[in-house]
This record gives sequence, C-alpha cells and structure tokens, in this order.
Amino acid sequence: MNINKNNHNLNALRILGVEAINKANSGHPGIVLGAAPIVYTLFNKIMKHNPKNPNWFDRDRFILSAGHGSGLLYSALHLAGYDVSINDLKKFRQLNSKTPGHPESHLTQGVEVTTGPLGQGIAMGVGFAVAEAHLASIFNKNNDLINHNTFVLCGDGDLQEGVSYESISFAGRQKLNKLILIHDSNDIQLDTEVKAVQSEDLHLRFKSCGWDTFKIEDGEDLELIESTILKAQSSDKPSYIEVKTIIGIGATNQGTTGVHGAPVGNDILNVKSYFGWNEEEFVIPKDVYKHWEQNCIIKNEIIEKEWIKKLSLLDKELLLKFNKHLNNEINFDFMSLLNEMPLKNEATRVSSGNIFDKINNSQTNLIGGSADLVGSTKIKGADGIFDINNRSGRNILYGVREFAMGGINNGIYKHGGLIPFASGFFVFADYMKPAIRLASIMENKTLFIFTHDSIAVGEDGPTHQPVEQLAMIRSIPNHMLFRPCDYAETLASYEYMLNKLKKTPSSLILTRQDLKQLPHNNVFEEVSKGAYIIKDEKDAQITLIATGSEVELAISVSELLDEQNFKTKVVSMPSTNLFDQQSQTYKDSIIDKNTLRISIEMGTTYGWDKYTGDNGLNFGIDKFGASAPAIDVIKEYGFTKEQIFNTIIKVIRKEK
Amino acid sequence: MNINKNNHNLNALRILGVEAINKANSGHPGIVLGAAPIVYTLFNKIMKHNPKNPNWFDRDRFILSAGHGSGLLYSALHLAGYDVSINDLKKFRQLNSKTPGHPESHLTQGVEVTTGPLGQGIAMGVGFAVAEAHLASIFNKNNDLINHNTFVLCGDGDLQEGVSYESISFAGRQKLNKLILIHDSNDIQLDTEVKAVQSEDLHLRFKSCGWDTFKIEDGEDLELIESTILKAQSSDKPSYIEVKTIIGIGATNQGTTGVHGAPVGNDILNVKSYFGWNEEEFVIPKDVYKHWEQNCIIKNEIIEKEWIKKLSLLDKELLLKFNKHLNNEINFDFMSLLNEMPLKNEATRVSSGNIFDKINNSQTNLIGGSADLVGSTKIKGADGIFDINNRSGRNILYGVREFAMGGINNGIYKHGGLIPFASGFFVFADYMKPAIRLASIMENKTLFIFTHDSIAVGEDGPTHQPVEQLAMIRSIPNHMLFRPCDYAETLASYEYMLNKLKKTPSSLILTRQDLKQLPHNNVFEEVSKGAYIIKDEKDAQITLIATGSEVELAISVSELLDEQNFKTKVVSMPSTNLFDQQSQTYKDSIIDKNTLRISIEMGTTYGWDKYTGDNGLNFGIDKFGASAPAIDVIKEYGFTKEQIFNTIIKVIRKEK
Repeated sequence: MNINKNNHNLNALRILGVEAINKANSGHPGIVLGAAPIVYTLFNKIMKHNPKNPNWFDRDRFILSAGHGSGLLYSALHLAGYDVSINDLKKFRQLNSKTPGHPESHLTQGVEVTTGPLGQGIAMGVGFAVAEAHLASIFNKNNDLINHNTFVLCGDGDLQEGVSYESISFAGRQKLNKLILIHDSNDIQLDTEVKAVQSEDLHLRFKSCGWDTFKIEDGEDLELIESTILKAQSSDKPSYIEVKTIIGIGATNQGTTGVHGAPVGNDILNVKSYFGWNEEEFVIPKDVYKHWEQNCIIKNEIIEKEWIKKLSLLDKELLLKFNKHLNNEINFDFMSLLNEMPLKNEATRVSSGNIFDKINNSQTNLIGGSADLVGSTKIKGADGIFDINNRSGRNILYGVREFAMGGINNGIYKHGGLIPFASGFFVFADYMKPAIRLASIMENKTLFIFTHDSIAVGEDGPTHQPVEQLAMIRSIPNHMLFRPCDYAETLASYEYMLNKLKKTPSSLILTRQDLKQLPHNNVFEEVSKGAYIIKDEKDAQITLIATGSEVELAISVSELLDEQNFKTKVVSMPSTNLFDQQSQTYKDSIIDKNTLRISIEMGTTYGWDKYTGDNGLNFGIDKFGASAPAIDVIKEYGFTKEQIFNTIIKVIRKEK
Repeated sequence: MNINKNNHNLNALRILGVEAINKANSGHPGIVLGAAPIVYTLFNKIMKHNPKNPNWFDRDRFILSAGHGSGLLYSALHLAGYDVSINDLKKFRQLNSKTPGHPESHLTQGVEVTTGPLGQGIAMGVGFAVAEAHLASIFNKNNDLINHNTFVLCGDGDLQEGVSYESISFAGRQKLNKLILIHDSNDIQLDTEVKAVQSEDLHLRFKSCGWDTFKIEDGEDLELIESTILKAQSSDKPSYIEVKTIIGIGATNQGTTGVHGAPVGNDILNVKSYFGWNEEEFVIPKDVYKHWEQNCIIKNEIIEKEWIKKLSLLDKELLLKFNKHLNNEINFDFMSLLNEMPLKNEATRVSSGNIFDKINNSQTNLIGGSADLVGSTKIKGADGIFDINNRSGRNILYGVREFAMGGINNGIYKHGGLIPFASGFFVFADYMKPAIRLASIMENKTLFIFTHDSIAVGEDGPTHQPVEQLAMIRSIPNHMLFRPCDYAETLASYEYMLNKLKKTPSSLILTRQDLKQLPHNNVFEEVSKGAYIIKDEKDAQITLIATGSEVELAISVSELLDEQNFKTKVVSMPSTNLFDQQSQTYKDSIIDKNTLRISIEMGTTYGWDKYTGDNGLNFGIDKFGASAPAIDVIKEYGFTKEQIFNTIIKVIRKEK
C-alpha cells in the first residue's frame, strides 16, 4: 500500500495523533494511523460543517464510536479549524484539557457525543438520524432546511456489542437512509485477531437488517472512500461501509494487537519516515493548514450562508417553533393540571400517563416511547407512530431493545432540537444502565420513566420486581430520581424534570398499583425540595420517612403510633437526590435528628442510614421478591401498617 | 389449521396451561396455546430426560427463554411426571408455590434456568452448549458419557434483545452444534405486531452468524416439527428453527396482542371446544398421562440405565474427577500461596492474576475468561483457548460481549459440572448488570472479576472510571463484593469466594495501580469477617474505615493524625456485604460508635453513612471522574493523605 506516502494533508492527521499519544505516553495509535484516510475524506471531501460555527444546526454529524481513537478526532478538529489548538493536543489526556482520553461532548467543541463505552456511538448515531428525519418532517416546507447526514466511524469491538445489533435492526426497520456507518475493519482487537472471537459475515448481517452495504478493500484508497460514501449518501436505506485498513499502518508492529493501545514511542521515527514526514514534533506545514481551511471552512461558509437564507425565509410561526426546539423550551402550565387530580385511588403510572399525554400534546419538542411496554407504562409520544411514512410522529416504537432505546435517545438529545423520553419496567433499567450513565456524563436533559417499581408488581415475580434499582439509579452522579406518592407529586415531579433541570437527566419511578391522593399545601414547592413534612406533629418523637407508594402507608402507621401516644411526623421524600442538595438548615428542619428516624421504602435499605442514623430503623427489602398477588407479596415482606407498627413498638419498648 | 383438534395428548398441555392462568387470573395464555406443539414434541419425541431423576447429568436440556410462557412449561413438567402436581398448577403465581410467574430454577425441579428477562435464556442456552462441549472433551473416552442437546424456545422479543445477538454470534463462531434454538414466531408482541418494530430477515441473520436455519410454516404440524428438529440435531452448526404459530390459537382473539398477556377468562369455553376438550377443569384423562409416561419416563429409563453403565465403566481417576466436577469441589491449598506474597508494590489485578492462574491450573472445574480484556484484567482460563479444535481449553474468548459473557456463564453454571468466571473493567459491569442480577437470583456460584476499579484508571477518563458501580453491586441481594487492599486480602477473598460461598455469586474488585503489601495477622480469618482492624490504637478517638486501594492511604492518614495526638484506628473492610452478616457484637468491636468514624473510598459515598453515622465523614466521589494521569486525578479528587488529613483536622477543630 503506502500510496499516500507524501500526502501531507492526510498524513498530518496521523502524525499529530501519534505525537499527542506519545507526549501523553498513553492512548491508542492503531486506529489513528489506520483510519486516518476515512476521517480525512469525511472532513475534507464529504461533510457539510463549519469549524467556526460548530453548532450550525444543519451540519453533517460525525460520531467516533470507537472513542479510544480520540487522538484521531482531536487532530482532525485541530486541522479543520475547530477550537482545538496545538497546545490542546499537547495536553492530550491531561487534567482539565479539551483533549481527554475519550471524546467528551461537554468539554470539546466539535465532539458531538461522548464515546468510549463500545457500541453506544452507533446507537447515538441512529438517534441523530431519527432526530434529523423528524425535524425535517416538521420544518421542511419546500425549503430543505433540515437535510444532513450522520456518519459513524466504528471499530470491530463496537460491532460485537449487543447494543449495536439492536440499533442496526431499528435503523433498518426505520429506513434511516441518512445514516452511514463506516467500519474501520482492521481484523485486530485488544486480545486477539477478530477472527478468534467473531466469524460473522458482516455484509449479510447488515443486509438481513435492511441496510445497503459496501466494501472497500484498500483503506488507503482516498478516491474509492469518497466515491463509496457518495454512493451511500444516495441510498434509500442506511448504509454500512466496511473499509479494510491496517491497524497502526506505518509502525513497525503494524497489523498486530501490540499497536492497538500502546504509544509507538521511538518507533515514531519509522512512522514519520514511512509517511515521508519531515517536520518537527507538532509542526504542521502551512500549506496543509491551508488545504484543510479551504475544504472545511471556506467551502462550507458558502453553504452555511445559503442555509441562513433559507432560515430567514421561514414563516414567523415556524421560526418561533424552530427556536423553541433549539432551546429545549418547555412552555406548559403545570399548575393547571392540579385541577385534574383524580378523586379516587390511582396508580402513579396512570397519573403519569394522563399528565404526560397533556404535556406531550402541547410540547412539540418531546419525542419518545417505550421498549414494547406502552400498554403497561402508559407513556407514548404524540402525533402517531414515528415511521417511514410518518416522520412527524413522535411515538417511537423501540421494540424490545431497552439499551438501544437509551442510546438512541442520547443521540436524539445530542442532535439538538428535541427532548427525548424512554419508558419501561423499572427492573429493566438494568438493561439500559450504560446508556443512563452516559446521559448523565453528557449532561443530557432526557427523561426515563419507569413503572412497576417494587415487589407490588406481584405475580410476575422476582425477575420483574425491582429491589436494588433505586440505589443503582440514585447513586449515579448528575442524575435525579423522583418517586412520587400520588398524582400531585407526579405532576410536580414532571414540572421539576422538564422546567428546572437543564443539564441533568432524570428518572421517574411509578407504581403499578393504585395509591391514595394525599393532602398537599404547595406540591410544586414541596417536591422542589426533594422532601417535606406531609403530616406534621408538634414535639414529635418519631419521624417516618417514606417515598412513593409507602407514603400513604407511613401516614397510616403514624396514625397507629399517635393512638399509642407516640407523636409521629411523616416526611415524604420524592427525591433523595434533590433533598441532598438542600441547605443543612432545611434538611434539619425536615428530618429532626432528635427523633427516632424510620425509613419505609419497598426497595433495598442500601443508602437509607444517611437519613435515619445509627439508631434509626430502615424498613426495606434486601432480598429478592416473590411471585404472588401484590397484596400477598406486600404482606409477606412486611409492608402492612400493622406489621410496621408492631416492629416499631417492639423496638421502642426494648430501648426503654 | 386445527389439525390437532382431537389430539388430547397435545391439547392437555394447552388446556392445563390456560386453566392455571385463568385460576391465577394472571399470566400469558398466548404462547401456551401457540407453542404447545413445540413443547409437546420436544418432551415426547425428542428429548432424553427422566422426570423421575431431573438431575440426570446427560439429559437434554430445555430452556424456555420466553419465560412468560411458564404456564406451558409447568403443564409439560406435570404431564411428563416431574414433581409438579395438579395442586401446584392450581397455585400458579401464588406465594410459596412451585409455579411462580416466571420459571425459577431454584424453586422447581425440571426448570433448568430462571427466565423472564428477555434474551438471557438464549445466552444461557449457549452456556449449556459450551459446558456440554467442554465436559464431553474431558470425560468422553470412547464412551460418549456426555452427549446431549440444548433446546431453547424463544419468542420474538428474545430476538430483539442485544444479548441474543451477542450470544448467537458467539455460538456461531464456536460451532456449538448441540444447540437448537426454536423460535415461536407468531408475529405478535406486547404493543404491536412484530413487523411494526422489526423487519429483519431472521434466516439471513442467523446464516450471517454461521448457523443452520429451518422454517416450519405450520406450527401445528407435529411430524414436521419432529423431523426438522431431528435434522437440526445432525447439523455441524447451531440450528435456528423458525416455527410459524398463531398466538393464542383457539381463543376468540387468537392472533392478536390481546391474547398475549391477559387470561382468556370465559373464552376458555371456546378454547376447549376448538380443541375438542370435554374434561372438567384441571382434569386430565388417564390415557393422556399414560402417553406422556411412556414417552417421558419409560422410554428414557432404559436410556438412563445404559448411561449409568457407561458411567460405571469410567476409570477410577476419571470418575473421581467427574464427581468433583458434579459437586463443584475446590481442593486448593490457598494458605500455601501466602508464601508467594510479593515483596514489592503490586496492583491487585496482578496479584489476582498470579493467584488465579495457580488455582485455575489445578482446579479443572474452573472455566472462563474475559470480554477481550485478558491483557488488562490478567484473568484467563487454563488449558488453552476453548475452541472448535480444542474443546478442552478453559480460556473462553467471549469477544467484546460483556452481557453475553454474564449470560453464557450463568448457563455454564446451571448446566452443572463447572464453575465459571468472567473478567472485565469494573465500569463495564454496567453492561452485564442484568446477568449479574440473574446469577444472584439463581444462586449461582460464579465469579465476576473486575479490574480498573476507580478514578485511578487515569487517562481513559470518566467513561472508564467507575464511581457508582460499588453501590450498584453491593446492593444486589445474594451477591458478595470483595475489594481487597493487597495481595494477601486478594488471596483470602478468592479463598472465601471459592470455598465458603456455595449459593452466592461474588465480585472481586481490583486496582489497575500498584499497592503496598500491608501487615496481617491471619488474613483468611480477617477477610472472612468482611472487616477487621488493620491498625489498632488504644483509646482511639477516630476510626478510619477504608477498602481496597484506600486502606494504605488510611494508614498514612492515621499516622499524620497520630502525630497530632489524635489517636486513630484503621479498619480494612474488604467486604461490606460480609461485614453486614456478622454479629452486632463483632461489628461494634470493629467500628466503635464512640469514635469519629470516617470512610475513605474512591467511589460514591452512597451507602457509607451506615458505618460512619450522623456525625461521621465520608471521603468519596459523587461526581464523574476525569481524564489525566492517575496521580493527577487522585489529587484532583482529594485522595492524598495530606488533603484528607487537613479536612479531618478542620472538622475536628470546628466541632470543638
């Protein structure tokens, strides 16, 4: 090969990347060297983007799903003229730099999404394509305002992860033809050659999912890469392009696992000589910069100008709507829905469904649905099913693909213009944990709506009854969990999630079973503090703290205690995460450390001692559930007012 | 169709199933009615099994991956003569019954694995096939002692889950030809028709993965089902058989989503009439029982007797080994490895790798490996790579498929004869959480070995640095997490995991970075209590509690505090889960509530108040990590002895 020996415009990309890795003495040079021709072609020949305005809305998006190739991405961003300087490259993988070990979208302009956990970049790419298709259907009125591609570069490992298959299947079903997945196919993964662990016919695999497929035998053939991508762009299906590359090309140990994840070190001399590169470290010839500037900036400025013209021709109403979408605005009178509080007992999943339908119908920037559980979660998007023939539908049928749902929604959000939501059974939050975490890292404003939130699921049994999931989600940084106790708290939770949270994803945890409607003063104020006193008692000796379905239970227990002259306060704590953010004064005013503090929650006790202290009591569940009618399971696990009352009385008497 | 109108031997299966569901007023009749011919054929015509000895080791295994079809499985178990009575069927989905909502292998004989969370039954089936192939290579000496099939029945939803693709790809690569996956293909899922969410050509998909595929157009054609399965059994590849069925056949709403998950109720009259069934509720004609008895018991008793003969001919040494495998015995002198403690600093992942290699080489019932991270986790199986040409290899290359790795290992364990282990980066425990949970529900003795356990991962940044994963795993019921502080604790953790735990999976959490070797008295005794005093101090005012890499840090901090005359004890707590199981007396002797209690752990503080109380201090990390050399990240997050010392001093002075 080596047909690009003296192509400095291309080779600058490789050399900068491996130099940055060498300087950091950490990183993955294999993909930087091997996949540079793909990135070079995308940035210079294919993509519509403006490094000087990285947020230009109609830009083509590029996702490096193989996030360990960050050195390649940063070099490209630098050469293209994004806000990544040579100095930034020198600080590769150093504290507070713009060039962290894996691309992080909240740190670096031009990085569309945070990648590194394999497979998820593909799911997010699918999300980008969904967002593009939907927004185009809304805003394109004979003007082509929204019309861009999503390019995802992935490695072999990405294609082994289950979430990639889920996403690929979804994209094929949806015929998301603006999505182009380019596979850096170098036959090498961390431990072994790919063939040691995978023998799939990848083209057949993609074809089985309804994709177009292309193969480029020589990954150094720039013209072929360009012409193939152009072909893919005109397909009416999503496209898979396999590009055969040599990992670490130019290094002495090219084509081996050795060059995947270790800096080339002194071997950089060989690399430079192989590519005919004679410059000093981190020095790029001016004509190279000029070449990239022409291709990335000057050429695109013209295109962007045309686009701005189109935008200016948008009618006023549509322009307003467009800006609302861009700013993730929610304009909804949550207060008004208080009037629609049901008079009877109602499952919070039902309250949630009713409330969300109303929000959803009026807020056109909400989109989402469920992984085949709409009937159970009561959560679906408005305007019909999103489909090939109805791109303006906002109800997405994800299929039984929880992880892809999370990943696709992360992509939809990062594309811009839409606030996505996902719903499912709480226990299957497990399946999408990696996507929930990534949403939190990326500071996405996205909603996870989980129903069937405890052993009260009943007959479906332990595999369907969450226990430790509350701790799992509450402990994720930058994530906010709400577990409301009735219609009013559910409404106030939505208000907080949609109005107050700007850079924090949230989870709403709802019951399958009916709950009472409880008395509130100002429920929006109450919920906004995370916890509040729902039943007060002067000189209380006991504080009961409960969440969700256990708040009404706690009130019942407090009444039994009151009858025995044990004065008892009840705290409703819809969000421990939010409560933790309050002032110490507020916290002390709600949970009085001089009382016997008791938590009641039908989930793990893990984490509750924080609120109940050394001498407190935690009523919870630290084993798996059981299959039986809900009422029987609840009793078996001790969550009736009599059982809890009796235990408390026993403890009090013992202590005395 | 309805060609089976008067086939009572078959229809008994359907009627019993829907009657049980009706009685429970809960369950999924759709699959019971639709897939009964498949289960009937397997149990009566195909499978080698003995209902009177459900643990017969060389039996064919049947997994109902679509676990919501439990009614079908229980009916089959009853008719076949397993220990499931009519009374048990009447208690379907009731408390403490043998017939819970989803099949649970630890509750019901004849249920091979716990299913319900979709996709995982397929992964476990792959695990069964791995175990069979491996054990056959070890124990078959011209005798065919181990030679059985694994049949998995799955629904449409199973095949949408990512873990199914991962497992299917793995099985194809490994040519696990004893595995036969039968797809109850009824075109209906919970919310919609399948085609609304999936348009894959499934046969092409399986072919792309190296499987044989078969299609049966009429799911009522018993002869075709039988002959097709026979064909599949002689394939040299794993087989996929699509059987087109009508969901809820015989019910008025057959073929619709309505019949998927709601009891048929009074419509049972129509169902019974459709199938020519005239018996009272829960009454089965004697000749039906006789038919099943002949096919399931009498026929197989002969086969089992032949097998017992083969077993008796096994040479003594091999028989001993066989029994050791069957009993999951570990005979290893852990104590002896204390002598090999390194004199220098060493990462616990390296200690773990060295220790485990020795255990592994001598214990032939251990099998496992990593999801493409052997080089990093240092954990691999012995006897070479498990592969088509080396089935006796015990090093499994799972590929970048964490979830499948967990699921396959669950299958290997439940097959019997082997103790599986899986290794990976701790942060990617997220990807396999659903399988870890299922291991805990099923009471599997399996090992999860996670390295790169904190922000000290360094350059790879927040996507690769665990924070909340400790809380996530520690809060799973029936799971035991160990985070050892040095070589000795790592060794003692292995001893506990392998010798003491019989029905509890465990996770070992290890560092990337080097740690000091710390002084111990009897480390096996120490670790077996979950926590112990590693540095004592008479009349201590302060107790520092730390785990893993922070124990040496805590000791350093205690020395600084001692210098200032703040007497300080240090507690090493390798397993909070194990410590929680100790007597209150022991707990109080380790953590003195009259001291200022301080936890130090480079992970979420979530859960630590349990040990440090209202006035304690928790040094932890409640935000995401950062990309930089480990030493810089550690400092940035405040985990140097000076930073911690200074904070403690400030707090003490403020309180005074």
